[in-house]
Formats: sequence, structure tokens, C-alpha cells
Amino acid sequence: MEFSAQQISGILGGQIEGNPDVKISKLSKIEQGEPGSISFLANPLYTQYIYTTTASIVIISKDFVLTAPVTATLIRVDNAGNAFAKLLEMYNQVKLNKSGISPQAYISPKATVGSNIYAGEFAVISDSAQIGNNVKIYPQVYVGENVTVGDNTTLFAGVKIYSDCVIGKDCIIHSGTVIGSDGFRFAPENEEGNRKIPQIGNVIIEDDVEIGANCAIDRATLGSTILRKGVKFDNLIHIAHNVEVGENSYLAACNVVAGSTKIGKNCMFSGQVGIVGHLNIADNTIITAQSGISKSITKKGEVYMGSPAFDANKYRKAYIHFRNLDALAQRVDKLEKQGKG
Amino acid sequence: MEFSAQQISGILGGQIEGNPDVKISKLSKIEQGEPGSISFLANPLYTQYIYTTTASIVIISKDFVLTAPVTATLIRVDNAGNAFAKLLEMYNQVKLNKSGISPQAYISPKATVGSNIYAGEFAVISDSAQIGNNVKIYPQVYVGENVTVGDNTTLFAGVKIYSDCVIGKDCIIHSGTVIGSDGFRFAPENEEGNRKIPQIGNVIIEDDVEIGANCAIDRATLGSTILRKGVKFDNLIHIAHNVEVGENSYLAACNVVAGSTKIGKNCMFSGQVGIVGHLNIADNTIITAQSGISKSITKKGEVYMGSPAFDANKYRKAYIHFRNLDALAQRVDKLEKQGKG
Amino acid sequence: MEFSAQQISGILGGQIEGNPDVKISKLSKIEQGEPGSISFLANPLYTQYIYTTTASIVIISKDFVLTAPVTATLIRVDNAGNAFAKLLEMYNQVKLNKSGISPQAYISPKATVGSNIYAGEFAVISDSAQIGNNVKIYPQVYVGENVTVGDNTTLFAGVKIYSDCVIGKDCIIHSGTVIGSDGFRFAPENEEGNRKIPQIGNVIIEDDVEIGANCAIDRATLGSTILRKGVKFDNLIHIAHNVEVGENSYLAACNVVAGSTKIGKNCMFSGQVGIVGHLNIADNTIITAQSGISKSITKKGEVYMGSPAFDANKYRKAYIHFRNLDALAQRVDKLEKQGKG
Repeated sequence: MEFSAQQISGILGGQIEGNPDVKISKLSKIEQGEPGSISFLANPLYTQYIYTTTASIVIISKDFVLTAPVTATLIRVDNAGNAFAKLLEMYNQVKLNKSGISPQAYISPKATVGSNIYAGEFAVISDSAQIGNNVKIYPQVYVGENVTVGDNTTLFAGVKIYSDCVIGKDCIIHSGTVIGSDGFRFAPENEEGNRKIPQIGNVIIEDDVEIGANCAIDRATLGSTILRKGVKFDNLIHIAHNVEVGENSYLAACNVVAGSTKIGKNCMFSGQVGIVGHLNIADNTIITAQSGISKSITKKGEVYMGSPAFDANKYRKAYIHFRNLDALAQRVDKLEKQGKG
Repeated sequence: MEFSAQQISGILGGQIEGNPDVKISKLSKIEQGEPGSISFLANPLYTQYIYTTTASIVIISKDFVLTAPVTATLIRVDNAGNAFAKLLEMYNQVKLNKSGISPQAYISPKATVGSNIYAGEFAVISDSAQIGNNVKIYPQVYVGENVTVGDNTTLFAGVKIYSDCVIGKDCIIHSGTVIGSDGFRFAPENEEGNRKIPQIGNVIIEDDVEIGANCAIDRATLGSTILRKGVKFDNLIHIAHNVEVGENSYLAACNVVAGSTKIGKNCMFSGQVGIVGHLNIADNTIITAQSGISKSITKKGEVYMGSPAFDANKYRKAYIHFRNLDALAQRVDKLEKQGKG
Repeated sequence: MEFSAQQISGILGGQIEGNPDVKISKLSKIEQGEPGSISFLANPLYTQYIYTTTASIVIISKDFVLTAPVTATLIRVDNAGNAFAKLLEMYNQVKLNKSGISPQAYISPKATVGSNIYAGEFAVISDSAQIGNNVKIYPQVYVGENVTVGDNTTLFAGVKIYSDCVIGKDCIIHSGTVIGSDGFRFAPENEEGNRKIPQIGNVIIEDDVEIGANCAIDRATLGSTILRKGVKFDNLIHIAHNVEVGENSYLAACNVVAGSTKIGKNCMFSGQVGIVGHLNIADNTIITAQSGISKSITKKGEVYMGSPAFDANKYRKAYIHFRNLDALAQRVDKLEKQGKG
């Protein structure tokens, strides 16, 4: 795919400075630009590169004032970052626009499949599964019995979805992620020894959810484990049985949420956060990396840090003293000696 | 599948109050009950729901005294929780009762396969593998060369088992879990640069073990990495080469156990616990979430907390002071000023 | 495979003491040796076992002085550990020496495939992929479009590699690992709600890299996420978009490295370490288990501990005081009372 500055400017509604006929076939960072690539300048810290880049085209803000000559053709737009994001998206759509059902896929005759789907090699769509329109199922995906997958959703290679789970529309699930595995619940008091409590609920993933690679989201014991609309997960996240994650909450890599905890809307958790079971976490809660939440959070919009976590500002203050505990202890030593002197 | 209150009461050995002919086809929580579902009341906190639930049948204790009328048919039993668990198990058994070998599975002619097994699409059973009776191998599972899988074991979709590993009877291994990958051992001192130490041992998983989704259990360098009878693992757990986990120990999500450590019996580790290599952990040890164990634990039945971890009660006490370190430091400031005054 | 002491001694350039015709077919630890196995003695802590082992052959140092009779045939070499490692490697090579393309593998007619490769059942090699010579692709591996895999590399069962990624020569990637999944980047300020930033970069893995099981290595937004030559990863590691890991750095299990961070050469990170995004970590940095790095590290060869981490020795000293905080607080109480007295 090759595009001219003229064509791209047309798509973005921009204005060209330089050669409108120069052509590009890929996208690059401005500091790594090369002939035949298009880049952009939005972050002031990168301003210097506009004068040295060898990218053929650079998207730049309408009101950016050049202080030296540039070799790239410029396309001036209102917001260079947004304009470049639009190009990225177009590029991605073209690249990921797969369709057709591989003869090596297995689709149960008892499954229902929408129009214009992609099903790659060695994918399995089980009995009673219901697959919407424009769904992309990459190779080696497993869609269990009675699973529903909404329109326009993409399941990358090797995703595994256990029976009875429900995936919404416009979702993206990355490779290796497992949805609907059994919750970790046992009844140790049973006279026959530790006995598994059967996990017969499911997982419900609402629309517009993205889940990273190699996550594990357990089904509910009864009822549903739920990820609400717009939830975004990074990689390697564990969600236990009967958890609910509220709308538009973002969980970074290696988060662990124990059973039956309810997380509010618009939360943001950094990497390696752990949350104990049976808690309620208020909307807009922010949790810093590696923190552990052991109590419910009722006030919205607070920031937590530590393990067990408390108010992040207080934690940071306490931690400064922790770093200097040796000095503090010596001061107490000295005071004691003075007292005795 | 539809069952009447009469039939279910017969199975559970209970007594009916209400319409014995009412039918149900699913199981629900009492607070989410709906017509056509059966629920139970065991937790006193949920007592209120017995009067409002729309579940068609509720299992309840023999000695529970109603204080208002109910619409559901009641089945009275000795222990409502156990009775419901029994129903769950029956439901699960019916649901998971898969059998037959898919024509799209690959079973080596050199493998040995028991009776009544299930082998799903695109599963691989390699040369010299030995699969017991009633084993369920879901789609896209990989059973390497010379692997043994005991009777009644279930391997969910996409489990990968490297060569020479041994899986016991009545085990359940969830999707994405990898068993028998190489241990992380290198000989950095070698003149040819960092060199891999070949990992030629195996993993032995004894009977009645359950392993969650996306775990990684490395093979031993020599000898065996061992999970003893009754061990239960949550999701995303890492077990390094030559580790041994004792009987009936429970590890929650995202535990990390480094090489050659031996964990005793009946231990319970919360989420995100890390354990250094070459340690011994006594029987009945409890470790709280996110703790890090850096030394062997010799006394049985203790509770550990912190990173590095020590006695949990002492940790909690120290942590209270940590939260107030700023105040403590100010008190020392004041004492110093008084001393100078 | 059976070998005599004579044959093995010839391979290792050693000297035999005892029966040169005794045969072995497997390798064992000296403390677990059994007839028909070969073992070695290198660690002085295991010296006692030379006199009790039932291994048929033991490799031992040239200058080791026996203080009692032994039953095993000895092979004396300069360095028993290295000699045994050499045997392990030979054993491993024979065992893993798979070749041939399964009729159940899918190889796109548009892919390029080198000589002497192994491609197992239900493996997928997509359009425009380029596979080098002697590459081993185990069952159920997914190699996306336009992926390059260098000579002699092994991809174990179920590895998933997204389009456009580049894997070097002599690499080993273990089961379940995902390479090239989308980075976790969203543009929350967008008027259309939280919007995904397309991730159109790739992952570049240089030569001689080993990656454990169930890792997740995200592709770059633009440009490349890079693992340099000789990098070694344990299991369940998360590497975010645009990260670079320097030559010969070792990351233990469950490390998390956030976006755009650059890690130097020869670093060693213990398990469960987390590193914030956009940092630079100097060469030869050592980080202890469960530590969290929140600032760039500029000085080479330092050891860090804690979350947030600082100098490990200082951390250990502070932590000793933390363990005794209750006592320190009581001492301050006492001083205050004395002041008032």
C-alpha cells in the first residue's frame, strides 16, 4: 500500500507544505523516520527531530512555527496526535481485515455463525455456540458449548472460552487468555476430604472490552463473573469467580482480584495490584503498582498505595521515614543516652 | 433437563413443603432466583431472601423456622449447603460428561489409550503416551511423548504437557496451563558465554490435584518436580524446577515458587506470594497475600506476612506504626528540641 | 539408548576406575542414583553420597580422594559438573531431535520454509512467514503473517507469534508464550470515549534468547519491542510495548516491565519484580524479589530492594528497624513520659 502526501492530506483534511506527490508505505516514529515513511510531531520534547528526520512526510500542528528548513513534506492539521492516530487505525483495519472460514477450522453443525466471519485453522466452535457478524476467530481458538460472541469481536490465536460464557460486541481478546475456567473454591470441611465446589456459573463480558494476553478469568460458582462495558485489561491478569469489574475500569498487567469482589467504574489499577475477596471498591479509585487492597474502599476517586494499602500521600510520607529508620532509631538511642546522662 | 421438587427431594432425602410437582431446569443464587430455578438458604445473612425470592424451589435446613409466608416450594434437609453442593456436582457431571474421539484429534499409533476417553478436535497425543480410562482431553491439548495421564483426569482446552511428565488420577488441569517446560537454569560461568543447563527431569502430579488456568510448572533439571496428592492451585502460578508441594496444600493465584524449594502438607498461601529457592516450608504454614518468603520455615502452623515475611501478628503491629511513622518522627523531633531547650 | 562407561569416558576424555563395561541408560542425581544410571559429584555437600549411591557410574573430579570403597564405576575428569552438563546436553539433543512436517500442520503456500524443519500437528505457519533451517515448531504453534524465525530456533507447543515479529537464531520459546500482542495503550481524552491506540509496531527477539512458558510480550505502538542477544526469561513475564531488554539480562518469573522502559545489559531481576514505564535501568543492575522500580537507575551494578526500591543494604537495615517498630515506638513513649516526669 502506497499513499501520496496529497491523498493522506485529503483523508486528514490537512494542508500540505512541500511536495504533494511524495509517497509513503509505512508509519514511523519521528526520531526513527526513514524515506518512505510518515511520522508526526505532537510532543514538544521531540521538536528537534522535525529538522533532522528523514521521514518523507511529517504531520504537524497548524500553528507550529518552523525555525529552520525541513526536508520532509509537512501536512498541517489541528491536532497532529489525533490525525496520526487516525492513520494508525486505518492501517490497522486494513492489516487485520481477515475473513473467510478455513477448511481446517472445526465448526459444529449445531453452532450458529453470523455473516462475514473469519475462522482460522484449527479453531473450534462448539455445539450451540452463537457467533455474531464480522467476528474474527484466529487459529487455534476454542469456543466452548453454548458460548455467545457478539458482532465485530476479535479473538486472537489460542484464546480459550469455556462453555456458557457470553462475550459482547466490539471486544478484543488476546492470545492465550482463558475465559470461564473454574473458580478456586473447595469445601475443606467435607468428611470425604477437601472437595471441589462445582463451578456452574459463567463469565459475561460486555461490549467494547479489551483483554490482554494470557489472562485467566474464572467463571462464577453460581451466577456470573462480569466485566462491564469498556473495561480494559493488560496481560496476565487473574479474575476470580463472581468478581465484577465496573464500566471503563483499566487494570494493568498481573493484577489479581479475588473472589466476589466488586470493582467500581473508571478505576485505574497499576501493575501487580492484588485485591482481597468479597470487597467493594468505589468508582474512580486509583491504585499504585504492587499495592494490596485488604478492605473495601467506599470513598470515590481516592489513590491507594502499599500492601496493605492506604492513602497514597500518607504512604509516600511514611515511606520516606521508613527509608531513614536507621537514622531515627539512632536519634532515639541518643535521646535515651542523654536522658540517662 | 427438567426435574420436579419430588425428584430432587428424593435424591437429597429431604422433605417437601409446598407443591411437589413444580419443575426447575437450572440452579441460582437465592437473591437472584427466578421461576424455573432451584436455590438454597444456608448463610443466615441471606435469610431475608427466603421471603422474596422468585426461585421455584429452595433447599433449606430442617430446623429453619419461617416467620412469614413463602412462595417457593421448600425442600428441607439436614444441611442445605451440602445438599445444594450435591446438586451442583450432579449438574456438573452431566454437563461435563463428554466422550468420544474426534476424527480431528491426532492420536499417535504408538500411544496407549484407555476406555471411554474423550479427545477433542486438534488434540495431540504423542508417541508412547499412556492415557487412562475415562480421561477427558479437550480440544487443542498437547500430550507430549511418553506422558502418562491417570484415570478420570480432565485436561481442559489447550493444556500443554511436555514429554515424560506423569499426571495422576482424578486430576483437573485448566486451559492454558503448561506442565514440564524447562527450568530456568543457566551456567553463567561457562567460557562459551551464558549456557543453558539441559533440563531432563520431569513433573510428577499425584492423584486428585487441581491446577488452574495459565499456570507454568517447570520440569526438574534431574529427577522430578512434584505436586503431591490433593494439591490445589489457582490460576497463573509459577513452579520452578525441582520444587515439591506437599499433600493438600492450596496455592492461590500468581504464587511463585523458586527452584528446589519443598513446601509441606496442608499449607495455604494467598495470592501473589513469592518463595525463594532451596527452602523448606513446614506443614500447615499460612502465608498472607503478596508476602515474600526468604528463609526456611521450620515450625508448623505459623502465619507469615510481609516481604521479607515474618510472623503475621508482629507484621501487623509493625505496620500500624509504619502508617504513623510521620507522627513518630515528629515526636522524636519534639523530644530533641526539648532536650536542647 | 544404552552406553558403556568406556564410551562415555571416551566422549568426556576421562579416566575410568572400575568396570569399563557397565552400561547406563539414564541420568540421575547422586542421592537418587539407581542401577543403570549415571550421576556426578561436584558439590562438596554431596560428598557422602559417593559412598552410598547405587548409580552404576559416577563422574568425579580427577583430584577427588576417596576415603572409603565405592561400588560405582568412576569416570574421572577435570570438572565433573561441566562433564555432566555435556552429557545432559547430548541427551537433550537426541531427545529433542525432531524433524519432519506433519500432514496435519498448516503451512501457507506463501510462507518460506528452510531445510530440515520440524512442524508438528495443527501448527500454523501463515502467509509470508519466513522459517529458517533446523527450526522446530511444535504442535499447535501459531506463526502469524510475515513473521521471521531464525535458524535452529525451537518454538514449543502452543507458542503464539503475532504478525510481523522477528525471532532470531538459536532461540527457545516455551509453551503458551505470546509474542506481539497489542500494547496496553488507550487515549482516554478522546471525545468518542476511551479509544484504543492501534499498535502497529512489532517485537524483535535477537539471537540466543530463551523465553519461559506463558509469557506475554507486547508489540510496540510504533517501532519495536526488543529483547537483545542472550536475554533469558523465566515463566509468566509481562513485557509491555516498546520495552528494550539489554544483552544477557536475566528476568526471573512474573516480572512486569511497563511501556517504553529500557533495561541495560547483564541485569539480573529476581521473581515478581515490577518496573514502571519510561525508565532507564543501568547495566548490571540487580533487583531482589518483589521489588518495584519507580525511578531510572543510572549507576551500573547496584542492588535494589523494596517497593519502591532503593539500595538493598539500606533497605535491609531499614527493614530490621521496621520489624522492631513497636519497640521503638515504646521507647519514644517512655522518653516522652520521662520528659514530663
